[in-house]
Amino acid sequence: MTRNVIVGQSGGPTAAINSSLAGVYRTAIDRGAKKVYGMLHGIQGLLNEKYLDLSDHIKTELDVELLKRTPAAYLGSCRYKLPGIHEDKAVYEKIFSILDKLDIEIFIYIGGNDSMDTIKKLSDYAVLTGHTTRFIGCPKTIDNDLALTDHTPGFGSAAKYIGTSMKEIIRDGFCLEYPAGLVTIVEVMGRNAGWLTGATILSKGEDCEGPDLIYLPEVTFDLDNFKERVAKFLKEKTSVVVAVSEGIHTEDGKYVCELGNDINFVDAFGHKQLSGTASYLATYIAAELGCKTRAIEFSTLQRAGSHLASRVDLLEAFQAGGAAVKAADEGETGQMVVLQRFSDEPYQSGTAVRDVHKIANDEKCVPRNWITEDGAYVTEEFITYVKPLVQGDVTPIMVDGIPRHLFTPEELYKK
Amino acid sequence: MTRNVIVGQSGGPTAAINSSLAGVYRTAIDRGAKKVYGMLHGIQGLLNEKYLDLSDHIKTELDVELLKRTPAAYLGSCRYKLPGIHEDKAVYEKIFSILDKLDIEIFIYIGGNDSMDTIKKLSDYAVLTGHTTRFIGCPKTIDNDLALTDHTPGFGSAAKYIGTSMKEIIRDGFCLEYPAGLVTIVEVMGRNAGWLTGATILSKGEDCEGPDLIYLPEVTFDLDNFKERVAKFLKEKTSVVVAVSEGIHTEDGKYVCELGNDINFVDAFGHKQLSGTASYLATYIAAELGCKTRAIEFSTLQRAGSHLASRVDLLEAFQAGGAAVKAADEGETGQMVVLQRFSDEPYQSGTAVRDVHKIANDEKCVPRNWITEDGAYVTEEFITYVKPLVQGDVTPIMVDGIPRHLFTPEELYKK
Repeated sequence: MTRNVIVGQSGGPTAAINSSLAGVYRTAIDRGAKKVYGMLHGIQGLLNEKYLDLSDHIKTELDVELLKRTPAAYLGSCRYKLPGIHEDKAVYEKIFSILDKLDIEIFIYIGGNDSMDTIKKLSDYAVLTGHTTRFIGCPKTIDNDLALTDHTPGFGSAAKYIGTSMKEIIRDGFCLEYPAGLVTIVEVMGRNAGWLTGATILSKGEDCEGPDLIYLPEVTFDLDNFKERVAKFLKEKTSVVVAVSEGIHTEDGKYVCELGNDINFVDAFGHKQLSGTASYLATYIAAELGCKTRAIEFSTLQRAGSHLASRVDLLEAFQAGGAAVKAADEGETGQMVVLQRFSDEPYQSGTAVRDVHKIANDEKCVPRNWITEDGAYVTEEFITYVKPLVQGDVTPIMVDGIPRHLFTPEELYKK
Repeated sequence: MTRNVIVGQSGGPTAAINSSLAGVYRTAIDRGAKKVYGMLHGIQGLLNEKYLDLSDHIKTELDVELLKRTPAAYLGSCRYKLPGIHEDKAVYEKIFSILDKLDIEIFIYIGGNDSMDTIKKLSDYAVLTGHTTRFIGCPKTIDNDLALTDHTPGFGSAAKYIGTSMKEIIRDGFCLEYPAGLVTIVEVMGRNAGWLTGATILSKGEDCEGPDLIYLPEVTFDLDNFKERVAKFLKEKTSVVVAVSEGIHTEDGKYVCELGNDINFVDAFGHKQLSGTASYLATYIAAELGCKTRAIEFSTLQRAGSHLASRVDLLEAFQAGGAAVKAADEGETGQMVVLQRFSDEPYQSGTAVRDVHKIANDEKCVPRNWITEDGAYVTEEFITYVKPLVQGDVTPIMVDGIPRHLFTPEELYKK
């Protein structure tokens, strides 16, 4: 390439999104980019001309390693939804004038479903107007719900955090004896796709029984049936651990977390903000079965836990970032990088690109036959799928006993 | 020694309590114990003659390493409070008849304040009745609130988990831009002692600003003042992160978590069960300041996060277990092992024993002058104190991408 690259991050952060950023930066430099800009807070920041020159922040090989190990979006993220081209042409004109000013040849956006919608619209606009900037999406989401890719960067590290923490919680559960038993409800992120909740199965092994019940949002949740299953386990075990997705809902379409309260928030994309599923179920079970219960939410930690990142995940995220630049440099636009799996064991994967129009706004859920017939557990197929993605560790760079991250750009936190 | 050793674990589990168990086992074997028994669920289990022979479970050097890395109480824990000797002599007769049956020379109890009360009563009874079994306490609590010891095994690992996770949360907070700012309230364990909440300061370094406000239970909490401080930070920063102890309370003695609801539970020791402080404050700040807020509880994970254990902590826990056996073998009884600090940098420590009568039921809080005058942060003295305790890592033994633990004794989870 002969001109510049700009890269942005969008949507919920992950432990691997900065590894993709590192991959974009390295490959862009290697392929001759004059400048590599980073949008601050994605397309929303770019609209306000907020960006930085990445070479001011990534100066050494060690910086690249620190960036890979830094959780959350290094450049800041956003949830800005671009209007349709027919709805607000002025927004597009503004963006493209900024891209022209910065002499941008390649525009990379690291994000999930909503971010791929941005890539689709921008590349459409460029094609329609004959603009030469090329737009490539780089997948990112802990939710693993993007279509056409075997899995998404960020999922493996979140799954590793969830599997490890779940195992520690299960162990903790056996410690204290309660006369009527202990039931722990663990709430995992995932509105419509149960990939992360299913990943609690990773806690299972010869040294741990794993969770007793796993409820994904792909299957309708029945409160009575749930109670009966818990009661049955309580007859056999001192401690029962249940994994639930934040998005489980009853037959009438009501989220379980809505059963307890009436307050609901809706974000910029019209998604309901869910929380309180575990808390509601813990209160319910305590009242119905008279046992001790506790509710645990992995919350933000499951997406920010870079100290437990998966090596496979961080490497693939890095590769995906590089593949995005390579595809654009070779003339592609309106595409998203996908990860392809060639074999489970030994695990082998590679990257390719796919038309972003076939990906944007589509959600990939856990196949019904990867969930047991009774809807309360995952199958061997699910385990075979998820296991390779959490292999290997990325040793944190410890300073004074705490993992070191790359300095936060000042523009990000100061007002 | 010529006879047997029995060891039990009591109170809330930690990431280091099994390292103490490993230390007890190794030293007991080294010093000639014929058998090393483990009480299942502490003194409560012993009363029901529930115990196991540890050599059936710890067979190799690798098992010892796995035990050190296994979170929660390997033998199961309890919250059983022994009645006073004058209140129920029969309980004591039963315990001592079991000890006689098992030919116990040394009784080690790994626990916190309440457990030291057990050691005190049992050793008193033995002295009164001329019984030859010796009783030594081995300190354990993430809360770090035991008197006479510089710190307690378990605290360092919890502090490392809290410092690391806090840093990841702070980083996550800068990602998304909210028009009126984002305030994250992080709730940390610690009813009356703020050691763990103070440990959030470990997130601070040249790559992280650390939490903006830290509220310990040692200082009265003022809701209005809190709101004003948050509002001030919101003018300067896009994301404000506040660490609060679950035990913070207002001037009239009311816990902050009680302000939101009226339901309170009291455990066997008469302690109120606290939870919901962060959630209450997040709702309060959102309503008062109109900003986006979120509440995060470290919950069980902060005591079970053995994958992030501190090497200093695990080694000291191991040493404390060994020192307990050594003291008993040398004739001591009614004592607790304490950790002594000889210097901060380089950090040097050692073990000694202290009369358990001077420890039991006493709570060590953070000194007022280690908290800033305004009551909303900790001082350099606090940092100097806590930093050495989180140094070094204990690499988890990974199997299939997830940390491996020592097999749970079947007696613990099957009914």
